Amino acid sequence: MNTPAEPLRLAENTPWNRQEFEAQLRAKGAGYHIHHPFNVKMNEGRLRPDQIRAWVANRFYYQIRIPQKDAAIIANCPDRDTRRKWVRRILDHDGYDGHEGGIEAWVRLGEATGIPRDDLLSLKLLVPGVRFAVDAYVNFARQAPWQEAVCSSLTEMFAPQIHKDRLANWPQHYPWIQAEGLHYFRSRIPLAERDVEHGLHVTLDYFTTRPQQMRALEILQFKLDILWTMLDAIEKAHP
Amino acid sequence: MNTPAEPLRLAENTPWNRQEFEAQLRAKGAGYHIHHPFNVKMNEGRLRPDQIRAWVANRFYYQIRIPQKDAAIIANCPDRDTRRKWVRRILDHDGYDGHEGGIEAWVRLGEATGIPRDDLLSLKLLVPGVRFAVDAYVNFARQAPWQEAVCSSLTEMFAPQIHKDRLANWPQHYPWIQAEGLHYFRSRIPLAERDVEHGLHVTLDYFTTRPQQMRALEILQFKLDILWTMLDAIEKAHP
Repeated sequence: MNTPAEPLRLAENTPWNRQEFEAQLRAKGAGYHIHHPFNVKMNEGRLRPDQIRAWVANRFYYQIRIPQKDAAIIANCPDRDTRRKWVRRILDHDGYDGHEGGIEAWVRLGEATGIPRDDLLSLKLLVPGVRFAVDAYVNFARQAPWQEAVCSSLTEMFAPQIHKDRLANWPQHYPWIQAEGLHYFRSRIPLAERDVEHGLHVTLDYFTTRPQQMRALEILQFKLDILWTMLDAIEKAHP
Repeated sequence: MNTPAEPLRLAENTPWNRQEFEAQLRAKGAGYHIHHPFNVKMNEGRLRPDQIRAWVANRFYYQIRIPQKDAAIIANCPDRDTRRKWVRRILDHDGYDGHEGGIEAWVRLGEATGIPRDDLLSLKLLVPGVRFAVDAYVNFARQAPWQEAVCSSLTEMFAPQIHKDRLANWPQHYPWIQAEGLHYFRSRIPLAERDVEHGLHVTLDYFTTRPQQMRALEILQFKLDILWTMLDAIEKAHP
């Protein structure tokens, strides 16, 4: 019990408190795809129009799979209160009543960049590597405990900045894109902030031992890998 | 009924006979990853040792997931006779009694290229994009009708040549790799030929209408995309 390694091992097994754990989760932002070379180029105005269109068309596959991912979480969740909150994400993306929703907003982004609606919907511009990465996310949500799938959604913590960057930089660098096409990015900022609050609450409640908290960081890394790999595959196909 | 387009439409809806259908399946070999730039470089001796090791370590993930893919097919298959044939694939890879099996042979290939066994088994060299592509294959086998999953395995039609190329070229181009490490490639040639015979039999029996036959070609393309995307991801991570 008095070996020098013991205090360290005890520290390693002590759970982080909520503030510390949240800080550990937020520190994963260093690996967010905002830092991917392709996204850096996008923000610096160094992408060609065909590369912008490739990104929009491939990221569209992520957009259309998100409601299925969220429905898988609801399908695995026995807690009515959580489901009542989580279902808003499906409504946000698919739309309801007078609200067109995020998928339709992305179609308009596509049109603003010169992709006909039918071309976007047909997925004929989809790179296989992007499909595999996005499907990995949906399959994870189907197969993991719902709290783990919620945790994987926490890359939304880092999303408002990526949206703000695009709103700030695109009109200057890509004047050929009609400005109203950028509505999707603007609309997501308050929704991402609301979603993060709920997702963080679930995650901080569920992962309470240190090994569980380490598992949460691994799950968040898995999701970061998905977003990063999507850009890898788009960049490889459109160098 | 007498419009000029009619005879064409009739022809498009006529099923191919078994020989024609098999020829259509085999023609998909034009998209086999034997033609991927990274594999071409491999055969021409133009890969660095770290690139060879990256390929071996990443392809290892495919090797270890294959028995789970095959078990998923068996899990979905109500036909005992098919299961009795298909289970041989699990035995081939996992080994049995005195037979070490394909996964162990791949570990030896890894050692022959300088990857310590524990490093290989830890998957610490695995690129996320490779994981997502391979998992897409396993998930397809879990979720599709078993005959569709069998059809997806038919890329084995094109495998003997890729193994033969490596056996012919590696000793010359990569003399630093111990020759006994290439046993895996040699062992797979007769097994691939046996597996193809069975997989083709199931596929030619099951996909009998023209729309079904077109679906079979799509499934084979999906599997070709997986193998191609694996090399894309390895090449992107190890340029």
